[in-house]
Amino acid sequence: MQITANNPELRSWISVAPDSEFPIQNLPFGIFETAQHGKRAGVRIGDFVLDLAQMAQFGYFDDLGFVASDFSQDYLNPMMRRGKLAVRALRNRISELLATANHSFRLNESQHVALLPVANVEMCLPVQIGDYTDFYSSKEHATNVGIMFRDPANALLPNWLWIPVGYHGRASSVIASGHPVVRPKGQIKPDDNAAPIFAASRQVDFELEMGFLTFDGKPIGESISTAEAEDYIFGLCLFNDWSARDIQKWEYVPLGPFLAKNFASSMSCWIVTLDALQPFACPTPAQDPEVLSYLQFEGNKSYDIHLEVAIEAPSCPEQVVSRSNFKYMYWNMAQQLAHHTVNGCNIRCGDLMGSGTISGPTPDSYGSMLELAWKGTKPIQMPDGSERRFIQDNDTVIMRGHCAQNGIKIGFGEVKSILLPAH
Amino acid sequence: MQITANNPELRSWISVAPDSEFPIQNLPFGIFETAQHGKRAGVRIGDFVLDLAQMAQFGYFDDLGFVASDFSQDYLNPMMRRGKLAVRALRNRISELLATANHSFRLNESQHVALLPVANVEMCLPVQIGDYTDFYSSKEHATNVGIMFRDPANALLPNWLWIPVGYHGRASSVIASGHPVVRPKGQIKPDDNAAPIFAASRQVDFELEMGFLTFDGKPIGESISTAEAEDYIFGLCLFNDWSARDIQKWEYVPLGPFLAKNFASSMSCWIVTLDALQPFACPTPAQDPEVLSYLQFEGNKSYDIHLEVAIEAPSCPEQVVSRSNFKYMYWNMAQQLAHHTVNGCNIRCGDLMGSGTISGPTPDSYGSMLELAWKGTKPIQMPDGSERRFIQDNDTVIMRGHCAQNGIKIGFGEVKSILLPAH
Repeated sequence: MQITANNPELRSWISVAPDSEFPIQNLPFGIFETAQHGKRAGVRIGDFVLDLAQMAQFGYFDDLGFVASDFSQDYLNPMMRRGKLAVRALRNRISELLATANHSFRLNESQHVALLPVANVEMCLPVQIGDYTDFYSSKEHATNVGIMFRDPANALLPNWLWIPVGYHGRASSVIASGHPVVRPKGQIKPDDNAAPIFAASRQVDFELEMGFLTFDGKPIGESISTAEAEDYIFGLCLFNDWSARDIQKWEYVPLGPFLAKNFASSMSCWIVTLDALQPFACPTPAQDPEVLSYLQFEGNKSYDIHLEVAIEAPSCPEQVVSRSNFKYMYWNMAQQLAHHTVNGCNIRCGDLMGSGTISGPTPDSYGSMLELAWKGTKPIQMPDGSERRFIQDNDTVIMRGHCAQNGIKIGFGEVKSILLPAH
Repeated sequence: MQITANNPELRSWISVAPDSEFPIQNLPFGIFETAQHGKRAGVRIGDFVLDLAQMAQFGYFDDLGFVASDFSQDYLNPMMRRGKLAVRALRNRISELLATANHSFRLNESQHVALLPVANVEMCLPVQIGDYTDFYSSKEHATNVGIMFRDPANALLPNWLWIPVGYHGRASSVIASGHPVVRPKGQIKPDDNAAPIFAASRQVDFELEMGFLTFDGKPIGESISTAEAEDYIFGLCLFNDWSARDIQKWEYVPLGPFLAKNFASSMSCWIVTLDALQPFACPTPAQDPEVLSYLQFEGNKSYDIHLEVAIEAPSCPEQVVSRSNFKYMYWNMAQQLAHHTVNGCNIRCGDLMGSGTISGPTPDSYGSMLELAWKGTKPIQMPDGSERRFIQDNDTVIMRGHCAQNGIKIGFGEVKSILLPAH
């Protein structure tokens, strides 16, 4: 089924600023809340949110297999459970309804109650996450970590170029943009102590990531190939995989990070569909050695998405500390999903897969404070003269992302969270 | 609130065999399915399942805050969401209704349709698992692994005696007893190869574990103390954390096991409440060095639960290969939960926490084939003359567990799964 919603010639009868991240070619999905209706699924257009439950009640989606109750829910999952083709048809239909050529919705002004100014709603966690998996797919990031903590001459571990390394994360503590994060406490082992101490982390860090959300997969015991993988991907979000480096250092051998990561992970509220990102598909970096057959793929499976991270503090204006791009990732999402399921592991509607920290080739494109400040040796200068080696109490971390082409900008909004002092 | 259901003098008017694992002092919860009613919550008594939805319709739980729809569900979660005290009151009420002194239910024979022979129902996965965390809390197991794969002189890693080490597992692939497991394929790196190969695992293993299921916890950012921990534990199950050792060896550094574990984890179908296990609480093994303050606890927080693992094959009768006990665990559940939340990580209704492999002090009490056959050097002899270093295609692994005291036996039934050949 064609993705007609991506037509670059389309314009909307709704006024959309020329530099908006949410033109008619984007149409991302999210969950918004109002005092009147509670939580509902919506689609963003310019500075408006389209209430999908109301649109369904008006009958606009009757022939597509959706009912209003698919959208008057706390999460997008009931809508997502209809599957890739149904959601594509839904987005195409919404595009038709919002396009200048439309008469039905455009001319029926009584129905414009379904368009709410985004300033009047509260955005919520969009998806009920089943399992959250985090990958480790940036070669630059893995190399930087290896240089800092292991052996500069053998920075990449032996399996890294063969395996899209991943591990399981915590779904319960994935929170929406805007939700504050509390500085975690935990066991830390100072180098000059024989025993660990219990203290608030002194090395709270962000990790610049993107996440993708899945549709229902195949039954347990079956695998998804790289060719099939994108059929199971609903869309992408910005993702800040908060990390406490001092807790991580003491706990992570041999079974991986646990409390260093699961105190919070923040995701952006608008899910940009993989369909909307198709015009920005690009080649994956060359992979050498040649990957095993189940990881081989055809076509453009990476995405050219500009990313940036900024820090602001109560007394200090925002400072951009990193500019990166999703296309730098060594392993693409199709390979990640093929790897994840090659042993028969099943994926479900609403699973979240994090990319791992996205670091680029230059020091100003690194995706964590650990790398940007190079283990504290190169502190980041802030506009007020202060320095940052890690994130300080009451700092706000903001991540943004967008694609741009032929004057069209497809954006993700932001994921923004303040770090509060430890309890 | 008193746990009256544990009174050792109680007898049921329902005939229960003297050696049954399901006397009136047990009353475990599960989800059963019938062609007539679909899935429902039930309680096991002897060889019967009590249909809680019907009992609610008869009005027996009206004053306890439960409604029939809490029980006519695919999972126990709606019932569990009522919380510890409500579920305790429910179990106490069921005990009254099934006790010899009862008149209401006992004498109302038309209501006995709520008692179904267990042979006539199909048992299902009891809980919709939110997050699954696996601990690594047996000192004997961690020591055995350290001796085999690292340094016999320093078998335990430096953090092991300080941290109840845990990591995140995969919830989607937790399956009920009886569900077959397919031998996983994946990357394996033969010692004499420069590159990994893609093949079916040759080292599929079981891990003898117990799991506990949680009630809803505190909001994100808050912690649960060791003193509070048991208020958040609903009950326990038997748990087989299937593992592919060859896949694990190649993938697990540095972020932990992933595809080596997430192809399947099998749990028993009856959840024995922590309330039912109170008479079997016992001291935790001495912990030296003294643990940090947030891990200190008072009272008996370990449980004396006899465990065994058997293997059977199509042409070979069952052979018990391990006899262990849950009380051997170095870290108890209260410590695990306090550790898990000390950084502010939130737990939710239906989270599953695995104990980690339960190995005892003697070689016949080890909880995995890896240890029992000592890395393949001491194969297990089977009754038909064959040997086992790991689990073979079409082998069935059976785990059982029970507590016994004063002639009363509280059992978990079994978790039983056949390993099918790779696709």
